[in-house]
Amino acid sequence: MNAIKRVCCFLEENRERFEEELCAFLRFPSISANPDHRQDILSCAEWLRARFVEIGLAAEILPTKGWPAVVAETPKRPGLPTVLVYGHYDVQPVDPLDLWNSPPFEPRRENGILYARGATDDKGQVYTHVKAAEAWMRAVGEIPVNLIFLIEGEEEIGSPNLEEFIQERRARFEADAVLISDTSQFGPNQPALCYALRGLTYMEFVVTGSNQDLHSGMFGGIVPNPAQVVANVIASLKKPDGSIAIEGFYDGVRDAEEWEIREYEKLPWDFAGLARELGLPSLSGEREYPVPVRKWCRPTLDVNGLYGGYAGKGAKTVIPSQAGAKVSMRLVPGQDANRIADLFEAHVRAGIPSDCRIEIIRYQNSPATVIPVEDPAMRAGKEALQRGFGKEPLLIREGASIPVVAFFVDVMKMPVVLLGFGLPDDNLHAPNEKFTLADFHRGIATSAHFHDVYARIRSK
Amino acid sequence: MNAIKRVCCFLEENRERFEEELCAFLRFPSISANPDHRQDILSCAEWLRARFVEIGLAAEILPTKGWPAVVAETPKRPGLPTVLVYGHYDVQPVDPLDLWNSPPFEPRRENGILYARGATDDKGQVYTHVKAAEAWMRAVGEIPVNLIFLIEGEEEIGSPNLEEFIQERRARFEADAVLISDTSQFGPNQPALCYALRGLTYMEFVVTGSNQDLHSGMFGGIVPNPAQVVANVIASLKKPDGSIAIEGFYDGVRDAEEWEIREYEKLPWDFAGLARELGLPSLSGEREYPVPVRKWCRPTLDVNGLYGGYAGKGAKTVIPSQAGAKVSMRLVPGQDANRIADLFEAHVRAGIPSDCRIEIIRYQNSPATVIPVEDPAMRAGKEALQRGFGKEPLLIREGASIPVVAFFVDVMKMPVVLLGFGLPDDNLHAPNEKFTLADFHRGIATSAHFHDVYARIRSK
Repeated sequence: MNAIKRVCCFLEENRERFEEELCAFLRFPSISANPDHRQDILSCAEWLRARFVEIGLAAEILPTKGWPAVVAETPKRPGLPTVLVYGHYDVQPVDPLDLWNSPPFEPRRENGILYARGATDDKGQVYTHVKAAEAWMRAVGEIPVNLIFLIEGEEEIGSPNLEEFIQERRARFEADAVLISDTSQFGPNQPALCYALRGLTYMEFVVTGSNQDLHSGMFGGIVPNPAQVVANVIASLKKPDGSIAIEGFYDGVRDAEEWEIREYEKLPWDFAGLARELGLPSLSGEREYPVPVRKWCRPTLDVNGLYGGYAGKGAKTVIPSQAGAKVSMRLVPGQDANRIADLFEAHVRAGIPSDCRIEIIRYQNSPATVIPVEDPAMRAGKEALQRGFGKEPLLIREGASIPVVAFFVDVMKMPVVLLGFGLPDDNLHAPNEKFTLADFHRGIATSAHFHDVYARIRSK
Repeated sequence: MNAIKRVCCFLEENRERFEEELCAFLRFPSISANPDHRQDILSCAEWLRARFVEIGLAAEILPTKGWPAVVAETPKRPGLPTVLVYGHYDVQPVDPLDLWNSPPFEPRRENGILYARGATDDKGQVYTHVKAAEAWMRAVGEIPVNLIFLIEGEEEIGSPNLEEFIQERRARFEADAVLISDTSQFGPNQPALCYALRGLTYMEFVVTGSNQDLHSGMFGGIVPNPAQVVANVIASLKKPDGSIAIEGFYDGVRDAEEWEIREYEKLPWDFAGLARELGLPSLSGEREYPVPVRKWCRPTLDVNGLYGGYAGKGAKTVIPSQAGAKVSMRLVPGQDANRIADLFEAHVRAGIPSDCRIEIIRYQNSPATVIPVEDPAMRAGKEALQRGFGKEPLLIREGASIPVVAFFVDVMKMPVVLLGFGLPDDNLHAPNEKFTLADFHRGIATSAHFHDVYARIRSK
């Protein structure tokens, strides 16, 4: 029996124990947003460290400016590729608690589904990689790659210390590939490998006219109205056909390629059903592009917030002193995020009349992330999913942005393989978070296969 | 000595007593917005009724669905014109109390100024008419017009029962002229007679896209954005030159006449100072019209409120399910308020894409009010102000709308003479409300002269 077969047998024999251990992991209320949970967070990190030590890895708890990270690793054997598994052991708060069908930190298994806070996000998914490592160590005696685990405790509060933490230990965390399981499958038993994320430029602008709110009867007709100015500027950002009117916005945009569109068409979409669910007659947008291209491969601009004047019930005849808007743009490959922010700012400034003042605030500003599908790690990820799930994974993009992925790819120059084992309806950040136990076991198998396949590809 | 001279002597001899009585009137905390003040309101109405009886008028307290009204009248003598004095004995709340320099219901006289809640709005101004009536009754034995007082107790809560109250007693309140002293002079010792008010059409529209807020990364590019739609619609309401783009909006607008513009130019304006005070480089608007014409004689459209999505601190990547705007239009003579509301609604509806829903709410909708300056009551008002203040009053309009005036003029078909005795900075609805005592006495004289002049003009 070859190595991977022995690993798979080990997995089969230990299913029940793995589930029990995951339940133990889930019992820690490691809510990073709430300092009252300090002891729970520290105990959780220590419990996880002990699991790594138990299977033969060197493991330690490393402090950050916030909650500590758990770092574990195999010895570094020359000639083997290095794989970094990133994940997080902290969880979201549980409010509203009364909407939970069972206590969030008392894991409940029912009809093959495990309910608990953190079940998929991210303890359940992190633990697949821990148990895959165990299987290799126990069944074979070693893992065929150099493996490093970086499991942080601050993801749910925006990973404020992660980048600095990694940069300070750059050599230690350098790897040939990063595995992250913090997303989901495309749908039930439809694994998919995400190879591109859109970037994000988030801006706010605030227009000030007179220095106080004024009565529209007494001043209407002789003073500027910042709410009108904001609306004019927002309207000017789009052309009548809905395309973005900012000069130069589309410069360099790389269109989806033929193979990508063909790949997307294979996915089990239900656009009519989605529109119905959202209460819309149909999905909208750039009709010359297929829907998946619109949501994954095309840059967009959306107003995320609009404010100014009186927004309460009834009528108030005020000319507001200030009004503003929050606007975000999703960027695609070929667009320079800083340039887009500059173009946006120039466009907005040009629309402000001389008797109004403007303040522009820049929030997140990060380019699109693309992981080349021909990278050996991606090829290994695809094959591992195929083996773990028994079904060919499809190649997809995501319309959203995941800052940590952008950091690994753009700053650390390491390909990230997003192995999502959960389901889109697993209630992440919501009551009754869940994880299908079959997906938990398929995830462990996928992780185990990844090491096997990746080592083989890299040794060629 | 003729009648009016005897009246004026009486006024001179009783200045101190009139001030003392006004202070007594001001001591009642008759705050109509607060039901806890029920007894204060009723006691205040009873006190006022007693003052009318004291000077020889028939007076009673009449219930409404809310707070009662005080009604007083002289006998109706055939052949004499009838004058209705409208005012209110209720006052605004006093918050924030800590900004008052002395307790709001303990009137304080300092350097010729009387400080108290209600000092000008409206007890002080109402009381000028009461004391003018007393002077005629005591010094001459009768008033040269049939005089009716209607002093209500709900003006500060929007006069919810006034129109029905009057309609139910239409014959009793029919008059040749209505006197209202609830506005102010143009500036210190610059009396003015307001002969026109702008109308008001106040609308709100709410645009709904999908039935829930959506993540802009996952849905940006395939769903409508109601905040963008609202901005587009608002922007479409104006042309690039700032004029209103609603088809037919300006139809029938009657421009200010030459004599009006000449009259406005006589007023002691300080537009540069006003702009400076508002923090603006200059006043804006339709540059082809003089500033007073822009604020009094031209129709305007202002956004009074804009809302949708996330308006808090920081960034949130939401595509809002709903967004909306409150918009008001000031109307001028020649514009039909209902037609304007319909045109606005049609314009907005035409701007809503087929995958969004729209709800339109209509609030106030009233046409501009114009009182012909050649009406005998207006001529009498002008002469009375000239005599009472020793200075020729100027003819002005107001940019705002006063619903009760529109009701008297449009529904009851009675000319309203707005005799404003206060000053623009008398802190109405604010802490340290005040009334200049010289203006109180000039107001009494003006009211007394009005009856004399009006009776003379009408008898010709």
